[in-house]
Amino acid sequence: MESAIPQHLRAQCPRQRRVPDDYTPPYPSYVARHAKTVTRVVMAYFGVQFRDDTPAQLATAQTALAHLDADFGAADGPGHWDRARCVDDTGAVNVISIAYWDDPSAFDRWFVLQQQWWSDDARLADGIGYFTELLRPRVESYETLFSANDRTEGIAVLSQHLSGMVKEHAYWGGARDRIPLSQTDDLAPAGVPARVAIGGRVRITPHDNICLIRSGQDWTDTPPEERMMYLDDVEPVLHKGMRYLRDEGVAIGCFANRYMTVLDEQGRATDKSFGMSWWTSLAALERWAESHPTHLAIFGAAMTYLSTLGPAAKLRLYHEVTVARATEQFYEYLNCHPGTGLLHAT
Amino acid sequence: MESAIPQHLRAQCPRQRRVPDDYTPPYPSYVARHAKTVTRVVMAYFGVQFRDDTPAQLATAQTALAHLDADFGAADGPGHWDRARCVDDTGAVNVISIAYWDDPSAFDRWFVLQQQWWSDDARLADGIGYFTELLRPRVESYETLFSANDRTEGIAVLSQHLSGMVKEHAYWGGARDRIPLSQTDDLAPAGVPARVAIGGRVRITPHDNICLIRSGQDWTDTPPEERMMYLDDVEPVLHKGMRYLRDEGVAIGCFANRYMTVLDEQGRATDKSFGMSWWTSLAALERWAESHPTHLAIFGAAMTYLSTLGPAAKLRLYHEVTVARATEQFYEYLNCHPGTGLLHAT
Repeated sequence: MESAIPQHLRAQCPRQRRVPDDYTPPYPSYVARHAKTVTRVVMAYFGVQFRDDTPAQLATAQTALAHLDADFGAADGPGHWDRARCVDDTGAVNVISIAYWDDPSAFDRWFVLQQQWWSDDARLADGIGYFTELLRPRVESYETLFSANDRTEGIAVLSQHLSGMVKEHAYWGGARDRIPLSQTDDLAPAGVPARVAIGGRVRITPHDNICLIRSGQDWTDTPPEERMMYLDDVEPVLHKGMRYLRDEGVAIGCFANRYMTVLDEQGRATDKSFGMSWWTSLAALERWAESHPTHLAIFGAAMTYLSTLGPAAKLRLYHEVTVARATEQFYEYLNCHPGTGLLHAT
Repeated sequence: MESAIPQHLRAQCPRQRRVPDDYTPPYPSYVARHAKTVTRVVMAYFGVQFRDDTPAQLATAQTALAHLDADFGAADGPGHWDRARCVDDTGAVNVISIAYWDDPSAFDRWFVLQQQWWSDDARLADGIGYFTELLRPRVESYETLFSANDRTEGIAVLSQHLSGMVKEHAYWGGARDRIPLSQTDDLAPAGVPARVAIGGRVRITPHDNICLIRSGQDWTDTPPEERMMYLDDVEPVLHKGMRYLRDEGVAIGCFANRYMTVLDEQGRATDKSFGMSWWTSLAALERWAESHPTHLAIFGAAMTYLSTLGPAAKLRLYHEVTVARATEQFYEYLNCHPGTGLLHAT
C-alpha cells in the first residue's frame, strides 16, 4: 500500500489526513504517476454548442470539429484528447473535445494556431456557439483515481504509469487527501469571478481555487450480468444526481454540470460516460458529494459494487479533481446561451 | 453559529477541522454544555439478561430491576437514568438501565452500595445474566448532538443547557471534530483487550480509546404524517443497519450493537429507541458510518428528513459518542452468554 501523494511532493509537516495510518481501503484503487519532470499540465475543454435538429447548425458544428481535429494533429498538439457529447437543459447539444498537455510551453505554441481560427470574425457569424474552458494546474493541485490499473483516461494517459494500490480512497475527504497541495493549503476559494465582454465574446475572470471534476465510468468490457447491474442499479442513480447538479447545482456552488457520453472517432456513442462539473471550491464539491442523497446513493452503489466484485469488476471508474488558481484558468464563450459553463458564475 | 467545542476546552494549536470556516450546515443542531466545574462524568450500563418466556427468569429479572431502582434512589445515586430493552441474536432479552453521574466521587460512593448486591454469591445462582459496562470519561473525550434544543437525553440531561446552533455537524468527521480531545490527539486505539475470570464473573480489561456510541430517536411528538414518514421510510433502513452491526459487526471493529427500545416507568415500550454500540476505535465507527450502504442510507434519509422539515420536524434525533482510555473503562459479566457486549472483544 502506498500513499497517493508521490514521495517528491510530500510536505515536511503535512496536515493530518482523515484516516489513521493502519487504514485499509475496502477495494483497490490507483493513481496516475507523472514523470518528476512534469510540473504543470494543461486540461482544455473546447466546446461546440448547437441544435442537431437544425441541419445548417449541425453542418457548421461538423466543420468546426473537423477543423479542431486538424489542429490537434498539428505540431505541439495535445498528448491525448477525447470527445464527448451531452444535451444541456435548453436542449442544445454540446460536443466537447478535451485535450491534455503535460508541457505547457508546447500548449502555448499550439494555442497560437488554434486562436487564429477562434478569434476570426467569421466565428461570430457561424450561427453556433463555441467555448473554451481551460486549466493549467501545477501537479500539486490535482489528483486522479482509478478502480483498475490497466487502462488510463484523461490526464492520466499522459502519466508514466499508474501507482500501486493507494491508501487514501473510499472515504469522504479522500480527494482532498490525495491532492499534494492540501498537505499545506486549505484550498479555500478567494475573490469573485467577473465577466468581460470582448467583441462578441465573453470572458470570465475567475476566482482563486475553483474546482473541476471529471468523473467517468467505462462499461465496455462488462459481461451481460455485470452490464445489467451497472445499467439498472447504478446508472439511474448517477443520472439522477447529474440532473440535480445540472438543474439545481448553482445554489450549492456547482456552476455547471455536464453528464457526457464519450464519442468514438466516427462520432458515435460508446460505452463510456463521465460527469464534469465546475465548483466554487473543493469544499462545495465535498459537501454535495457527502451529504446529498443522490450522491450518497451513487457512492453506496459504487461501494457495494466494487466491494462485491472486487478486482473481478469489469466496470472501470476513474476521476480527476483539480483546484486551480485564478491565473491558471481561462474561459471564453462565443454565441453560447447564458446558462453555459462558467457564465453561470457571474 | 458557535463551535461545538466550548471556549474553555479549545486548544492553542488545534488540528484543522474538516470543514472551512464559512461552512453552514444544512439544518440546525445543538450540543450539551456542562458547567465548567464538571470535568469528568460516569456513564454506566447495568444489564439484566434473561428469557422472558421462562417465568422464573422473568420474575428474577423483575426483582433485580426493582433492586436497582431502589439503589438508584439511594444517596449519591445517578443524576439521570433511563431503561431500555432489546432482544439479542440468541433470542435473550437484555434490559439495560443506563445511569449518568457528573460527579465521579458521588458515583464511587454509590458504587460501593451497588457492589454489595452485585458481588453477593447469590447472584451466581440467580439463573439469569447480569452485566456492567461503565465509562468514566473526561469531558474532553466525548461529544453530544441534538436535532432539537428543547429536550435532552442521556448525559446531556446533566448539562447546564444546550448550546446555540453549532457548526460541526452534518458532514462526515463531524463527531471527531466535536470531541475536544481530537484537537490534539488522533484518538487511535492502543493495546489489546484481555479477559479475566473472577469467580463466576468475567471481567474485560480493555484497550485504550475504545469508542461507545448511543444514538437515539424519539418520535413521541410526531403528527400522523411525519410519524408514517419515520416509521415507513427511516426506521426500516435504520433497523437493517442495526441488525448488520449486531450480526456482522465484529469483522469491522464493532464488538457489540444493541438496537434498544426505551421503556417507561411501568416497563412498557415508548416511542423512543436508540442504538448503542462498542467499537474498537472512533475510526472504525467512522469507516462504517461513512461507507456502509446501510448507514449511508440512514444518513441520507435523515439529511432529507431534516433538510425538508427543518425546525418543524417533530422527530428528535440525538447521540453521544465517547472515546475512553483503558483506565476509564470497567466491564463485568455474570452468567451472560458468550456473545454479550465486550465478551466479543477477546
